[in-house]
Amino acid sequence: MNARTPRFTGVIPPVVTPLTADGEIDTVSLERLVGFLLEGGVTGLFALGSSGETAYLTDTQKDLVVDIVVGAAAGQVPVIVGTIEQTTNRAAERIEAARRRGADAVVATAPFYTRTHETEVERHFRLLAGTTDLPLLAYDVPVCVHSKLSADLVLRLAGDGVLAGVKDSSGDDVGLRYLCLGAQDLPDFSVLTGHEVVVDAMLLGGADGAVPGLGNVDPHGYVRLDRHAAAGDWTAARAEQDRIARLFEIVTAAAPGTASATAGGLGAFKTALKVRGVIDTNVVSPPMRPLDETETGRIAQILERAGLR
Amino acid sequence: MNARTPRFTGVIPPVVTPLTADGEIDTVSLERLVGFLLEGGVTGLFALGSSGETAYLTDTQKDLVVDIVVGAAAGQVPVIVGTIEQTTNRAAERIEAARRRGADAVVATAPFYTRTHETEVERHFRLLAGTTDLPLLAYDVPVCVHSKLSADLVLRLAGDGVLAGVKDSSGDDVGLRYLCLGAQDLPDFSVLTGHEVVVDAMLLGGADGAVPGLGNVDPHGYVRLDRHAAAGDWTAARAEQDRIARLFEIVTAAAPGTASATAGGLGAFKTALKVRGVIDTNVVSPPMRPLDETETGRIAQILERAGLR
Amino acid sequence: MNARTPRFTGVIPPVVTPLTADGEIDTVSLERLVGFLLEGGVTGLFALGSSGETAYLTDTQKDLVVDIVVGAAAGQVPVIVGTIEQTTNRAAERIEAARRRGADAVVATAPFYTRTHETEVERHFRLLAGTTDLPLLAYDVPVCVHSKLSADLVLRLAGDGVLAGVKDSSGDDVGLRYLCLGAQDLPDFSVLTGHEVVVDAMLLGGADGAVPGLGNVDPHGYVRLDRHAAAGDWTAARAEQDRIARLFEIVTAAAPGTASATAGGLGAFKTALKVRGVIDTNVVSPPMRPLDETETGRIAQILERAGLR
Amino acid sequence: MNARTPRFTGVIPPVVTPLTADGEIDTVSLERLVGFLLEGGVTGLFALGSSGETAYLTDTQKDLVVDIVVGAAAGQVPVIVGTIEQTTNRAAERIEAARRRGADAVVATAPFYTRTHETEVERHFRLLAGTTDLPLLAYDVPVCVHSKLSADLVLRLAGDGVLAGVKDSSGDDVGLRYLCLGAQDLPDFSVLTGHEVVVDAMLLGGADGAVPGLGNVDPHGYVRLDRHAAAGDWTAARAEQDRIARLFEIVTAAAPGTASATAGGLGAFKTALKVRGVIDTNVVSPPMRPLDETETGRIAQILERAGLR
Repeated sequence: MNARTPRFTGVIPPVVTPLTADGEIDTVSLERLVGFLLEGGVTGLFALGSSGETAYLTDTQKDLVVDIVVGAAAGQVPVIVGTIEQTTNRAAERIEAARRRGADAVVATAPFYTRTHETEVERHFRLLAGTTDLPLLAYDVPVCVHSKLSADLVLRLAGDGVLAGVKDSSGDDVGLRYLCLGAQDLPDFSVLTGHEVVVDAMLLGGADGAVPGLGNVDPHGYVRLDRHAAAGDWTAARAEQDRIARLFEIVTAAAPGTASATAGGLGAFKTALKVRGVIDTNVVSPPMRPLDETETGRIAQILERAGLR
Repeated sequence: MNARTPRFTGVIPPVVTPLTADGEIDTVSLERLVGFLLEGGVTGLFALGSSGETAYLTDTQKDLVVDIVVGAAAGQVPVIVGTIEQTTNRAAERIEAARRRGADAVVATAPFYTRTHETEVERHFRLLAGTTDLPLLAYDVPVCVHSKLSADLVLRLAGDGVLAGVKDSSGDDVGLRYLCLGAQDLPDFSVLTGHEVVVDAMLLGGADGAVPGLGNVDPHGYVRLDRHAAAGDWTAARAEQDRIARLFEIVTAAAPGTASATAGGLGAFKTALKVRGVIDTNVVSPPMRPLDETETGRIAQILERAGLR
Repeated sequence: MNARTPRFTGVIPPVVTPLTADGEIDTVSLERLVGFLLEGGVTGLFALGSSGETAYLTDTQKDLVVDIVVGAAAGQVPVIVGTIEQTTNRAAERIEAARRRGADAVVATAPFYTRTHETEVERHFRLLAGTTDLPLLAYDVPVCVHSKLSADLVLRLAGDGVLAGVKDSSGDDVGLRYLCLGAQDLPDFSVLTGHEVVVDAMLLGGADGAVPGLGNVDPHGYVRLDRHAAAGDWTAARAEQDRIARLFEIVTAAAPGTASATAGGLGAFKTALKVRGVIDTNVVSPPMRPLDETETGRIAQILERAGLR
Repeated sequence: MNARTPRFTGVIPPVVTPLTADGEIDTVSLERLVGFLLEGGVTGLFALGSSGETAYLTDTQKDLVVDIVVGAAAGQVPVIVGTIEQTTNRAAERIEAARRRGADAVVATAPFYTRTHETEVERHFRLLAGTTDLPLLAYDVPVCVHSKLSADLVLRLAGDGVLAGVKDSSGDDVGLRYLCLGAQDLPDFSVLTGHEVVVDAMLLGGADGAVPGLGNVDPHGYVRLDRHAAAGDWTAARAEQDRIARLFEIVTAAAPGTASATAGGLGAFKTALKVRGVIDTNVVSPPMRPLDETETGRIAQILERAGLR
């Protein structure tokens, strides 16, 4: 095993995209959120991920989000930009747009909407890497794209210099473990977990960092967890994670049968950030609906229980 | 049951998008293809559907495709344009672009990439219909968007004037039957099947028309099938369908384990059109690969067996 | 195409298994049900299918069901017995039990519970056929066993004399069409659809018969449908099917969110048979619950609307 | 949080079922295997689990397996017996058979083959618990039964005394974490993971023990892992787990495309045990095939690399 020096480590929240009451990008709230995250000690920012409503924003809105996040980060931490599109040529357009606006790295998924074969997924990432000098990370998110990136494929692409890292939101922790084992021979490669609730366990297994949506709401907690893990204090890491796991119950605040998991999760993150005074509204993009007062009340209670009021 | 007068009926092929050797829109081949389809007797054209590689084209390319198809159709048949995007605001942009370019109707799917609740799917279609005066058709394609439009939802939206029709590519023929039963009280509403191989059976069950990808390759056959059905000659309709079903085996020409079903299907349609002299290349968008010579040979044989050389 | 002489044709209902109030086999009701079906004109009986609660009955109960059905059928029509078990050796035991009790044919699924490869599915059917002289039918029911029998596999096994027929409850009507096309060269092979709602369409496409669960409730209707189809009167067949499709709405009578589709469907068939006076209770096996009075009221209304009171 | 005193903890391998060359239970090898496991320090034995080929054995064979395992265990560790059947009455029969033969606890899954609603799953476990005085564990194995036991349901059943524990083979480690959090208020309840490759991570998160199929092959390694974790030496636990994760690659030894994951996994465990001299054959039940010489060679190499020759 070589000494590892992965480029992206620690806590890199997928920044939510605050909206105004009429559904436009709330640039003031977004700047305030970035400041809150930096003050919390995060080591990177992932703009335009699933938690950033990437699937809901127009290209114009996406460009604005990158401008604001890059500006507010001001070089203190790297800004990784989601360039998530259905297929190669479309994603390549977004990669170029991100590069022009100052992204430090880009993140792409496997193709979606279309059915895709593993040979096509591999070609997709190789073609995308060929269009840019920016580091390219793969985003493994089967719940959205409906195919899984195998550990073999990711490690082969990493070994060939195509991928600089992976954000694993697959929930397949066995696959993640094999990524970590394989990465022992890939010193620069970053293995990041998209988990919120078992980050301690993934760090124990060798992950380099985490990209938790809930990290928007409690960056300080995740940063403490990460530092405990780095120090080898797994008892403290687990205790912090247990507290955060109970906080994550905010995603169940939406009334049952009235919203998608996406709307319930995103909506809860935004509502919690509003309750905490970080952003101004909990508006989400159509066709989602924002959480209402009753649901907001539930979230406020959970925040209080977790010591976050 | 009222007398039915659905707006869209008959054979409405989802027009494939020919590409040049370097992957640009082949406008000359596209015009020739539209001419071939019109000559075959089709009653409408569906541009930018799944068979039209909508998931692979950039917005600029999509606009060009609509321009060419609308121009070549020259008002002889309605042009229905796919405005397939991940979520509401993004689809609304494409609807407006299609309207400006002369589309006669637009087609939208449920949201994809994001997880979606039925209440959100319903809101999505209602919001989209509110942005345009064009007839809006729903495209039910769970294999791509990973949610199914229930017959109840489609009929409720039809009854409220939100939807002018549905293209059912779900393969759920029981659901389609209930759409047909419900449409008996919705005189203008169009129920279109996306099937290639059981179109006779769907017409027997009450479908108003078909949108078969294979209709690019053999429009004359599908038009004959449709006319036999309209005349109540189900024996002739079945015989025509049986011939076409054997022709559909071109989609298995790709070497096993080397291409997605999308690439194998699209690639076969394009290859057959090239063999038939209608379009100039069988190039498909990245990350798909075009079918090779051996695979083309298989397709040529099947065309010959079906009487299409 | 050879003249076809398939062994099993027409309407072959999957006989439900009436239970007493305390959950034992209600042999009197079962005999009465068989009489009702024979009087309705069915051409075969499928005991111990999914509708017969095969998954819920103990081996002792299954043996009793076969005894009763074979006895009541009294050789008037063939009795096909479901021998549905997780894997080969277990299914072979049930095949031998069915043979000893007088079954005319047996029906087996692909293995379930265990994950299975197509090579293993093929070996499973070959091994099973090797254990018995009875005709063996394959039951393609992915919703239960979570694998699909490909048309290629079924036709290969049919060509080798392993399979005498197939009951296709996959809902994949394209696959069924290819079975029908392939069966044109297999004169004795029987292609049976498990559909309730598109039987007319499947018969048009070449199916030899149907095994509709709803055929327990309305055997006369299905027999009429089948005879119209055999006579080439597709307009009458469709009208009969449309009536039956509306009758099938009984399966939605269970209060939403309170029962599985299995319980809702089985429970509706039994409740309708009780309302029609054919069987004595609508009890279903644990852990399912029987439909209650309100739900029974809904079913009675639908029966009345369909002319079945 | 109360002090926890769960009944089942540590390493409890799901004992494989050795077969003779002609497919009968190899009782001598089974006794030898139990001895090997006990010598390795395991704290319990799980007979007739998925790794024990429960889905493939006849009831007669199952009874024999229980007799042998109970006899060979001789009271040194508890014997937990899988009573895995499609539905309630059938599972109740197996529970009674296990009790008569001396099982210390039984394990049941949600119903399978049939579609099942959560209310039915709950009723199923309540009814089963009502039939026996033995401790009942739930086996959460969606890959086999195609439904997931929610943490809410399991904890509710645990709180009501219906369930004494859960074996979680769902791969849903977030769900497992919430089981562990909930179990902090259920002192006797046992949370066992079915993972092979992330056992260290699950123990960090609060699991009480593990039921790893690979524990048949390397019980000593898992026992070391568990003891390191119990001692709070997470660095050593991780190192042991990393070694075991590489050993688990034996499950990929089957030639691609020639066997199911079940056959590849089971076959590898049996082949490794044969190579290690613990059991006499690597025969698996039909319709699976045993691994061949080339595949055995691969496994022997991996064993050697892991220090197990």
